[in-house]
Amino acid sequence: MANDTRQRILEACSICIARDGVRGMRVQDVCKQAGISTGLVYYHFTDRDGLLAATLEYVNVDSVAQREESIAGGNESYGLLRELLLAEIQDDEFVRAKSIVWNEIKAIAVFEPPLAEHLAGSTAAWQLHVAELVSGHTGTEVGQCQETALLLTSLVEGLSSRWLSNQLDSAAARAALERGMEAILPANA
Amino acid sequence: MANDTRQRILEACSICIARDGVRGMRVQDVCKQAGISTGLVYYHFTDRDGLLAATLEYVNVDSVAQREESIAGGNESYGLLRELLLAEIQDDEFVRAKSIVWNEIKAIAVFEPPLAEHLAGSTAAWQLHVAELVSGHTGTEVGQCQETALLLTSLVEGLSSRWLSNQLDSAAARAALERGMEAILPANA
Repeated sequence: MANDTRQRILEACSICIARDGVRGMRVQDVCKQAGISTGLVYYHFTDRDGLLAATLEYVNVDSVAQREESIAGGNESYGLLRELLLAEIQDDEFVRAKSIVWNEIKAIAVFEPPLAEHLAGSTAAWQLHVAELVSGHTGTEVGQCQETALLLTSLVEGLSSRWLSNQLDSAAARAALERGMEAILPANA
Repeated sequence: MANDTRQRILEACSICIARDGVRGMRVQDVCKQAGISTGLVYYHFTDRDGLLAATLEYVNVDSVAQREESIAGGNESYGLLRELLLAEIQDDEFVRAKSIVWNEIKAIAVFEPPLAEHLAGSTAAWQLHVAELVSGHTGTEVGQCQETALLLTSLVEGLSSRWLSNQLDSAAARAALERGMEAILPANA
Protein backbone atom coordinates (compact mmCIF):
# COMPACT_ATOMS: atom_id res chain seq x y z
CA MET A 1 0.00 0.00 0.00
CA ALA A 2 2.74 2.44 1.05
CA ASN A 3 4.77 1.16 -1.90
CA ASP A 4 1.88 1.82 -4.24
CA THR A 5 1.69 5.43 -3.07
CA ARG A 6 5.46 5.87 -3.38
CA GLN A 7 5.38 4.48 -6.91
CA ARG A 8 2.44 6.70 -7.83
CA ILE A 9 4.24 9.82 -6.57
CA LEU A 10 7.43 8.94 -8.49
CA GLU A 11 5.50 8.34 -11.69
CA ALA A 12 3.71 11.67 -11.25
CA CYS A 13 7.01 13.43 -10.60
CA SER A 14 8.53 11.98 -13.80
CA ILE A 15 5.54 13.21 -15.78
CA CYS A 16 5.79 16.70 -14.25
CA ILE A 17 9.55 16.95 -14.92
CA ALA A 18 9.17 15.74 -18.50
CA ARG A 19 6.52 18.41 -19.04
CA ASP A 20 7.86 21.41 -17.10
CA GLY A 21 11.49 20.61 -16.37
CA VAL A 22 12.97 20.43 -12.88
CA ARG A 23 12.84 24.25 -12.76
CA GLY A 24 9.10 24.14 -13.27
CA MET A 25 8.46 21.09 -11.10
CA ARG A 26 6.45 22.01 -7.99
CA VAL A 27 5.59 19.56 -5.26
CA GLN A 28 1.98 20.72 -5.36
CA ASP A 29 1.74 19.86 -9.08
CA VAL A 30 3.15 16.40 -8.39
CA CYS A 31 0.48 15.93 -5.69
CA LYS A 32 -2.25 17.03 -8.07
CA GLN A 33 -0.93 14.69 -10.79
CA ALA A 34 -0.76 11.78 -8.32
CA GLY A 35 -4.08 12.67 -6.67
CA ILE A 36 -2.64 12.70 -3.14
CA SER A 37 -1.98 15.21 -0.35
CA THR A 38 1.31 17.12 0.01
CA GLY A 39 1.75 15.60 3.47
CA LEU A 40 2.20 12.15 1.91
CA VAL A 41 4.98 13.42 -0.36
CA TYR A 42 6.90 14.84 2.58
CA TYR A 43 6.20 11.67 4.58
CA HIS A 44 7.77 9.50 1.88
CA PHE A 45 10.56 11.78 0.61
CA THR A 46 11.27 14.34 3.36
CA ASP A 47 11.74 17.25 0.95
CA ARG A 48 11.95 18.30 -2.70
CA ASP A 49 15.58 17.10 -2.98
CA GLY A 50 14.61 13.71 -1.59
CA LEU A 51 11.83 13.49 -4.17
CA LEU A 52 14.23 14.38 -7.00
CA ALA A 53 16.82 11.82 -5.89
CA ALA A 54 14.16 9.11 -5.63
CA THR A 55 12.84 10.01 -9.09
CA LEU A 56 16.33 9.58 -10.52
CA GLU A 57 16.46 6.09 -9.00
CA TYR A 58 12.97 5.41 -10.30
CA VAL A 59 13.81 6.25 -13.92
CA ASN A 60 16.92 4.10 -13.50
CA VAL A 61 14.86 1.01 -12.56
CA ASP A 62 14.39 0.04 -16.18
CA SER A 63 18.12 -0.30 -16.64
CA VAL A 64 18.31 -2.49 -13.55
CA ALA A 65 15.61 -4.74 -14.96
CA GLN A 66 17.49 -4.98 -18.25
CA ARG A 67 20.67 -5.69 -16.31
CA GLU A 68 19.18 -8.72 -14.58
CA GLU A 69 17.66 -9.93 -17.81
CA SER A 70 20.95 -9.77 -19.64
CA ILE A 71 22.94 -11.74 -17.06
CA ALA A 72 21.27 -14.77 -18.61
CA GLY A 73 22.77 -13.81 -21.98
CA GLY A 74 26.39 -14.96 -22.04
CA ASN A 75 27.38 -15.34 -25.66
CA GLU A 76 25.13 -12.67 -27.00
CA SER A 77 26.84 -9.80 -25.22
CA TYR A 78 27.18 -7.63 -28.31
CA GLY A 79 23.48 -7.81 -29.12
CA LEU A 80 22.55 -7.10 -25.50
CA LEU A 81 24.95 -4.19 -25.32
CA ARG A 82 23.59 -2.72 -28.53
CA GLU A 83 20.06 -3.14 -27.23
CA LEU A 84 20.88 -1.60 -23.85
CA LEU A 85 22.51 1.50 -25.37
CA LEU A 86 19.95 2.02 -28.14
CA ALA A 87 17.14 1.64 -25.56
CA GLU A 88 18.06 5.12 -24.27
CA ILE A 89 16.99 6.80 -27.53
CA GLN A 90 13.54 5.75 -28.72
CA ASP A 91 10.37 7.42 -29.98
CA ASP A 92 8.43 6.20 -26.99
CA GLU A 93 6.73 8.60 -24.63
CA PHE A 94 8.00 6.92 -21.47
CA VAL A 95 11.58 6.58 -22.75
CA ARG A 96 11.60 10.25 -23.72
CA ALA A 97 10.18 11.31 -20.33
CA LYS A 98 12.78 9.19 -18.55
CA SER A 99 15.57 10.69 -20.67
CA ILE A 100 14.37 14.22 -19.96
CA VAL A 101 14.36 13.53 -16.21
CA TRP A 102 17.90 12.14 -16.49
CA ASN A 103 19.00 15.11 -18.61
CA GLU A 104 17.51 17.62 -16.16
CA ILE A 105 19.05 16.01 -13.11
CA LYS A 106 22.47 15.91 -14.82
CA ALA A 107 22.27 19.67 -15.45
CA ILE A 108 21.12 20.51 -11.93
CA ALA A 109 23.67 18.23 -10.25
CA VAL A 110 26.31 20.79 -11.27
CA PHE A 111 24.88 23.10 -8.59
CA GLU A 112 23.64 20.54 -6.04
CA PRO A 113 26.27 18.19 -4.59
CA PRO A 114 23.79 15.81 -2.86
CA LEU A 115 22.02 15.27 -6.17
CA ALA A 116 25.41 14.86 -7.89
CA GLU A 117 26.17 11.98 -5.50
CA HIS A 118 22.98 10.16 -6.43
CA LEU A 119 23.65 10.81 -10.10
CA ALA A 120 27.19 9.44 -9.79
CA GLY A 121 25.85 6.27 -8.15
CA SER A 122 23.26 5.65 -10.87
CA THR A 123 25.73 6.40 -13.66
CA ALA A 124 28.39 4.13 -12.16
CA ALA A 125 25.91 1.24 -11.94
CA TRP A 126 24.89 1.70 -15.59
CA GLN A 127 28.51 2.02 -16.69
CA LEU A 128 29.53 -1.14 -14.80
CA HIS A 129 26.78 -3.03 -16.54
CA VAL A 130 28.03 -1.79 -19.91
CA ALA A 131 31.58 -2.81 -18.91
CA GLU A 132 30.33 -6.31 -18.06
CA LEU A 133 28.75 -6.67 -21.50
CA VAL A 134 31.90 -5.31 -23.19
CA SER A 135 33.84 -7.90 -21.18
CA GLY A 136 31.46 -10.65 -22.33
CA HIS A 137 31.92 -9.50 -25.93
CA THR A 138 35.70 -9.13 -25.96
CA GLY A 139 36.77 -11.68 -23.36
CA THR A 140 38.74 -8.96 -21.51
CA GLU A 141 38.44 -8.55 -17.73
CA VAL A 142 35.64 -6.23 -16.60
CA GLY A 143 38.08 -3.83 -14.90
CA GLN A 144 39.84 -3.27 -18.18
CA CYS A 145 36.57 -2.56 -19.97
CA GLN A 146 35.65 0.42 -17.77
CA GLU A 147 37.38 2.92 -20.07
CA THR A 148 35.46 1.63 -23.07
CA ALA A 149 32.25 1.72 -21.02
CA LEU A 150 32.93 5.35 -20.07
CA LEU A 151 33.25 6.31 -23.74
CA LEU A 152 30.12 4.42 -24.76
CA THR A 153 27.91 5.79 -21.97
CA SER A 154 29.21 9.36 -22.44
CA LEU A 155 28.49 9.13 -26.16
CA VAL A 156 24.95 7.92 -25.41
CA GLU A 157 24.43 10.91 -23.10
CA GLY A 158 25.82 13.37 -25.64
CA LEU A 159 23.65 12.02 -28.46
CA SER A 160 20.61 11.77 -26.21
CA SER A 161 20.92 15.45 -25.34
CA ARG A 162 21.02 16.34 -29.07
CA TRP A 163 17.91 14.23 -29.57
CA LEU A 164 16.00 15.76 -26.64
CA SER A 165 16.71 19.29 -27.87
CA ASN A 166 15.53 18.29 -31.38
CA GLN A 167 18.91 18.75 -33.01
CA LEU A 168 18.73 15.11 -34.14
CA ASP A 169 15.71 12.88 -34.65
CA SER A 170 15.77 9.48 -32.97
CA ALA A 171 16.72 7.64 -36.18
CA ALA A 172 19.78 9.86 -36.77
CA ALA A 173 20.85 9.65 -33.12
CA ARG A 174 20.51 5.85 -33.10
CA ALA A 175 22.43 5.51 -36.39
CA ALA A 176 25.22 7.69 -34.98
CA LEU A 177 25.29 5.60 -31.81
CA GLU A 178 25.67 2.40 -33.84
CA ARG A 179 28.59 3.90 -35.76
CA GLY A 180 30.12 5.06 -32.48
CA MET A 181 29.80 1.58 -30.97
CA GLU A 182 31.58 0.04 -33.94
CA ALA A 183 34.41 2.57 -33.68
CA ILE A 184 34.84 2.41 -29.90
CA LEU A 185 34.48 -1.31 -29.25
CA PRO A 186 37.61 -3.43 -29.61
CA ALA A 187 37.38 -5.45 -32.81
CA ASN A 188 37.72 -8.98 -31.36
CA ALA A 189 34.73 -11.02 -30.20
CA MET B 1 30.16 52.46 -26.11
CA ALA B 2 26.90 50.52 -26.68
CA ASN B 3 29.03 47.49 -27.52
CA ASP B 4 30.95 47.87 -24.29
CA THR B 5 27.71 47.78 -22.32
CA ARG B 6 26.44 44.81 -24.27
CA GLN B 7 29.69 42.92 -23.64
CA ARG B 8 29.61 43.82 -19.94
CA ILE B 9 26.04 42.51 -19.58
CA LEU B 10 26.89 39.25 -21.36
CA GLU B 11 29.94 38.71 -19.18
CA ALA B 12 27.86 39.39 -16.06
CA CYS B 13 25.18 36.97 -17.27
CA SER B 14 27.76 34.20 -17.84
CA ILE B 15 29.06 34.71 -14.31
CA CYS B 16 25.54 34.60 -12.84
CA ILE B 17 24.62 31.43 -14.75
CA ALA B 18 27.87 29.68 -13.79
CA ARG B 19 27.13 30.52 -10.15
CA ASP B 20 23.36 30.01 -9.88
CA GLY B 21 22.33 28.12 -12.99
CA VAL B 22 19.79 29.36 -15.51
CA ARG B 23 17.04 28.53 -13.00
CA GLY B 24 18.60 30.89 -10.48
CA MET B 25 19.60 33.59 -12.99
CA ARG B 26 17.60 36.75 -12.43
CA VAL B 27 17.87 39.80 -14.65
CA GLN B 28 18.23 42.01 -11.58
CA ASP B 29 21.27 39.99 -10.41
CA VAL B 30 22.86 40.37 -13.84
CA CYS B 31 22.31 44.13 -13.63
CA LYS B 32 23.87 44.25 -10.18
CA GLN B 33 26.83 42.17 -11.37
CA ALA B 34 27.30 44.43 -14.41
CA GLY B 35 26.64 47.63 -12.45
CA ILE B 36 23.94 48.89 -14.83
CA SER B 37 20.19 49.55 -14.79
CA THR B 38 17.59 46.92 -15.77
CA GLY B 39 16.35 49.28 -18.50
CA LEU B 40 19.64 48.86 -20.36
CA VAL B 41 19.33 45.05 -20.34
CA TYR B 42 15.86 45.23 -21.86
CA TYR B 43 17.05 47.85 -24.34
CA HIS B 44 19.83 45.57 -25.59
CA PHE B 45 18.16 42.15 -25.32
CA THR B 46 14.37 42.75 -25.27
CA ASP B 47 13.69 40.06 -22.64
CA ARG B 48 15.20 37.28 -20.55
CA ASP B 49 15.10 34.82 -23.51
CA GLY B 50 16.93 37.33 -25.68
CA LEU B 51 19.58 37.69 -22.99
CA LEU B 52 19.99 33.91 -22.73
CA ALA B 53 20.30 33.46 -26.50
CA ALA B 54 22.90 36.26 -26.68
CA THR B 55 24.84 34.70 -23.81
CA LEU B 56 24.98 31.41 -25.69
CA GLU B 57 26.46 33.23 -28.69
CA TYR B 58 28.85 35.06 -26.39
CA VAL B 59 30.27 31.87 -24.83
CA ASN B 60 30.58 30.51 -28.36
CA VAL B 61 32.82 33.37 -29.47
CA ASP B 62 35.96 31.60 -28.25
CA SER B 63 35.31 28.75 -30.62
CA VAL B 64 34.88 31.19 -33.49
CA ALA B 65 38.23 32.78 -32.65
CA GLN B 66 39.88 29.37 -32.59
CA ARG B 67 38.19 28.52 -35.87
CA GLU B 68 39.73 31.51 -37.64
CA GLU B 69 43.10 30.81 -36.08
CA SER B 70 43.10 27.24 -37.27
CA ILE B 71 42.30 28.01 -40.89
CA ALA B 72 45.96 29.00 -41.13
CA GLY B 73 46.90 25.46 -40.01
CA GLY B 74 46.66 23.19 -43.05
CA ASN B 75 48.88 20.20 -42.40
CA GLU B 76 48.52 20.23 -38.67
CA SER B 77 44.80 19.44 -38.66
CA TYR B 78 45.09 16.61 -36.15
CA GLY B 79 46.87 18.78 -33.60
CA LEU B 80 44.38 21.61 -34.07
CA LEU B 81 41.45 19.24 -33.78
CA ARG B 82 42.86 17.73 -30.61
CA GLU B 83 43.41 21.22 -29.20
CA LEU B 84 39.95 22.43 -30.16
CA LEU B 85 38.18 19.46 -28.54
CA LEU B 86 40.35 19.36 -25.40
CA ALA B 87 39.87 23.12 -24.97
CA GLU B 88 36.30 22.39 -23.84
CA ILE B 89 37.48 20.59 -20.69
CA GLN B 90 40.05 22.56 -18.71
CA ASP B 91 40.64 23.55 -15.09
CA ASP B 92 40.24 27.20 -15.94
CA GLU B 93 37.56 29.32 -14.31
CA PHE B 94 36.38 30.92 -17.55
CA VAL B 95 36.31 27.62 -19.46
CA ARG B 96 34.31 26.01 -16.68
CA ALA B 97 31.87 28.94 -16.53
CA LYS B 98 31.43 28.80 -20.30
CA SER B 99 30.83 25.04 -20.19
CA ILE B 100 28.25 25.43 -17.42
CA VAL B 101 26.38 28.04 -19.47
CA TRP B 102 26.43 25.73 -22.48
CA ASN B 103 25.32 22.76 -20.33
CA GLU B 104 22.47 24.76 -18.81
CA ILE B 105 21.20 26.08 -22.12
CA LYS B 106 21.30 22.56 -23.60
CA ALA B 107 19.08 21.29 -20.78
CA ILE B 108 16.62 24.18 -21.00
CA ALA B 109 16.39 24.06 -24.80
CA VAL B 110 14.38 20.84 -24.37
CA PHE B 111 11.50 23.00 -23.11
CA GLU B 112 12.09 26.20 -25.08
CA PRO B 113 12.05 25.88 -28.88
CA PRO B 114 13.41 29.41 -29.61
CA LEU B 115 16.45 28.66 -27.43
CA ALA B 116 16.77 25.25 -29.11
CA GLU B 117 17.07 27.01 -32.46
CA HIS B 118 19.94 29.16 -31.25
CA LEU B 119 21.59 26.13 -29.69
CA ALA B 120 21.26 24.17 -32.93
CA GLY B 121 22.92 27.02 -34.85
CA SER B 122 25.86 27.26 -32.46
CA THR B 123 26.32 23.51 -32.33
CA ALA B 124 26.17 23.17 -36.12
CA ALA B 125 28.87 25.85 -36.54
CA TRP B 126 31.15 24.08 -34.05
CA GLN B 127 30.49 20.70 -35.65
CA LEU B 128 31.21 22.03 -39.13
CA HIS B 129 34.53 23.37 -37.91
CA VAL B 130 35.38 19.96 -36.46
CA ALA B 131 34.38 18.34 -39.78
CA GLU B 132 36.74 20.71 -41.62
CA LEU B 133 39.63 19.68 -39.40
CA VAL B 134 38.76 15.99 -39.78
CA SER B 135 38.74 16.60 -43.53
CA GLY B 136 42.16 18.26 -43.33
CA HIS B 137 43.45 15.30 -41.36
CA THR B 138 42.03 12.49 -43.47
CA GLY B 139 41.86 14.09 -46.93
CA THR B 140 38.17 13.17 -47.17
CA GLU B 141 35.58 15.74 -48.32
CA VAL B 142 34.08 17.86 -45.54
CA GLY B 143 30.55 16.60 -46.23
CA GLN B 144 31.66 13.04 -45.58
CA CYS B 145 33.31 14.04 -42.30
CA GLN B 146 30.09 15.33 -40.72
CA GLU B 147 29.22 11.94 -39.23
CA THR B 148 32.62 11.69 -37.56
CA ALA B 149 32.27 15.29 -36.35
CA LEU B 150 28.87 14.48 -34.83
CA LEU B 151 30.40 11.60 -32.85
CA LEU B 152 33.36 13.67 -31.67
CA THR B 153 31.32 16.69 -30.58
CA SER B 154 28.66 14.52 -28.88
CA LEU B 155 31.40 12.68 -27.00
CA VAL B 156 32.89 16.00 -25.87
CA GLU B 157 29.47 17.09 -24.59
CA GLY B 158 28.87 13.79 -22.77
CA LEU B 159 32.30 13.87 -21.09
CA SER B 160 32.00 17.57 -20.29
CA SER B 161 28.73 16.94 -18.48
CA ARG B 162 30.41 14.20 -16.36
CA TRP B 163 33.19 16.65 -15.58
CA LEU B 164 30.85 19.51 -14.62
CA SER B 165 28.89 17.27 -12.24
CA ASN B 166 32.18 16.10 -10.66
CA GLN B 167 31.85 12.51 -11.79
CA LEU B 168 35.20 12.87 -13.57
CA ASP B 169 38.05 15.28 -12.90
CA SER B 170 39.38 17.22 -15.87
CA ALA B 171 42.42 14.93 -16.30
CA ALA B 172 40.25 11.78 -16.52
CA ALA B 173 37.79 13.46 -18.89
CA ARG B 174 40.58 14.70 -21.15
CA ALA B 175 42.29 11.29 -21.18
CA ALA B 176 38.99 9.64 -22.13
CA LEU B 177 38.46 12.21 -24.88
CA GLU B 178 41.89 11.46 -26.33
CA ARG B 179 41.12 7.72 -26.38
CA GLY B 180 37.77 8.48 -27.98
CA MET B 181 39.40 10.61 -30.69
CA GLU B 182 41.80 7.80 -31.55
CA ALA B 183 38.96 5.29 -31.78
CA ILE B 184 36.56 7.48 -33.76
CA LEU B 185 38.92 9.15 -36.24
CA PRO B 186 39.68 7.25 -39.43
CA ALA B 187 43.22 5.87 -39.22
CA ASN B 188 44.70 7.50 -42.35
CA ALA B 189 46.35 10.91 -42.29
